[in-house]
This record gives sequence, structure tokens and C-alpha cells, in this order.
Amino acid sequence: MLTEAEMKANMQRYLDGFNKNDPEKVISLFAADAQVEDPVGSEKLIGKGSLADFFRQSVASVKQLKLEAPIRGSHGNSAAMAFSIHVEKEGIKTIIHCIDVMTFNDAGKIIDMKAYWGPEDAQQL
Amino acid sequence: MLTEAEMKANMQRYLDGFNKNDPEKVISLFAADAQVEDPVGSEKLIGKGSLADFFRQSVASVKQLKLEAPIRGSHGNSAAMAFSIHVEKEGIKTIIHCIDVMTFNDAGKIIDMKAYWGPEDAQQL
Repeated sequence: MLTEAEMKANMQRYLDGFNKNDPEKVISLFAADAQVEDPVGSEKLIGKGSLADFFRQSVASVKQLKLEAPIRGSHGNSAAMAFSIHVEKEGIKTIIHCIDVMTFNDAGKIIDMKAYWGPEDAQQL
Repeated sequence: MLTEAEMKANMQRYLDGFNKNDPEKVISLFAADAQVEDPVGSEKLIGKGSLADFFRQSVASVKQLKLEAPIRGSHGNSAAMAFSIHVEKEGIKTIIHCIDVMTFNDAGKIIDMKAYWGPEDAQQL
């Protein structure tokens, strides 16, 4: 099992991958059989192929991810973080307030990610 | 299914219950068969009897819960919030940085709560 510090470092790498416009770095954090539900309530993406397409598109559309509070660990193999997603598309700026929960396998890869944000968490600037 | 605004209002009531030192208000937000894992990685509490004992003790020991960022909804029946827990015991002040994820049933009660915080998220002041 990863330590809390290792889980938090991986979540920081996820943010960094977006902020350095490096989708392959983001994708490399996930296990081959990982599941992603982003946002929670939408259809789950299962397996690295689906995830890779999703993250290539989302890294391209996101300008910045900004932590809003320190990343939290747990007493298990999950960690959570509150951050904002800054998107700019055709001159329109949007901020989405999001909380991600990630669960890690023993090899240190993300096996499950859930992103909590709803329509009301997105604000057009 | 609750709206996003309704889920967020219930999570605010959870914070208010702690901050008004009103454990019964906190307990009333949960379904009879609710499950609580606080912190994630510890044994789950199942059913209102176990929850009630847990929340009576924790409301008594917590001085304040403070939101660290806006409460998030989702596209489903879950919502999440990042907050800090301020505890004072025998003159020693501790802050725990926590993220709670709550899932609601159609009657508007919490059926599942997961609290993400680990030993490294607790700081003695």
C-alpha cells in the first residue's frame, strides 16, 4: 500500500500533468484496468484506452488546475483533493469547482478516480 | 433524487450541527441504514445506533468545522466538501484537514458518508 505522502505526490503529478500540458504524464499515473467517473453520475470510463482518449481531450481544453486546499490522505489506499478547473474555450472562461477521490493499487497506480462536480459548480466568468 | 442545492444544504446542516453543538441535528440527517467510514480505511459504522454514538462523541470533542472551499455537487446523488476540523482537548489544539463525500437516498437522507483524512492531515498547534 502507498504511504499518504506517496498518494499525495501522485495527485500532485496529476495536477502537474495538466498544468504542463502533458496528457501522457497524466495517463501514465493510471493502472491498465483503471476506472474513471468524471463527473460522478456520468458513465464510467473503464480501461486505459478510454481513459487515454478522455485525458488527451481534457488536458487540451484545460488551462489550469489550482488546488483550493491541501490534498488529503486517509487511513486506507485513497486520497482526495479540492481544486478548481480553469477552462478557456472560444474566448469564454469557465471555472469548475471539483473534488477528486483517487484510489491506488499496490503498484502505486490509480485504479479508481471519482470527480465530484455538478452543473452548479461551473461558473462562467 | 435530491437536487444539487438540496444536497449542499444538507451538508451545510451537518456543519451547522457540529458548530451549534447539536449532535441530534447531525444524526437526524442520516438514514436508518446509513454507513459511515470516518476516516476511510477504518471499520465502517453501520446503522443509526452506531452512528448516533459516534456523532454524540465527535460533536462533543469538536470545537468547530470550517469549510475550506465551496461544497461540490455531482451529476448523481453524491456531493463532497473540503473542511477543517478544530479540536481542543486538555488544552491541546489540533486541526484535521478532511474531505467528506456523502451519498443521499431519495428521501433526502445520507445513506453513505466517507471521510478522507489521514494521520498526516492532523496538525497540532
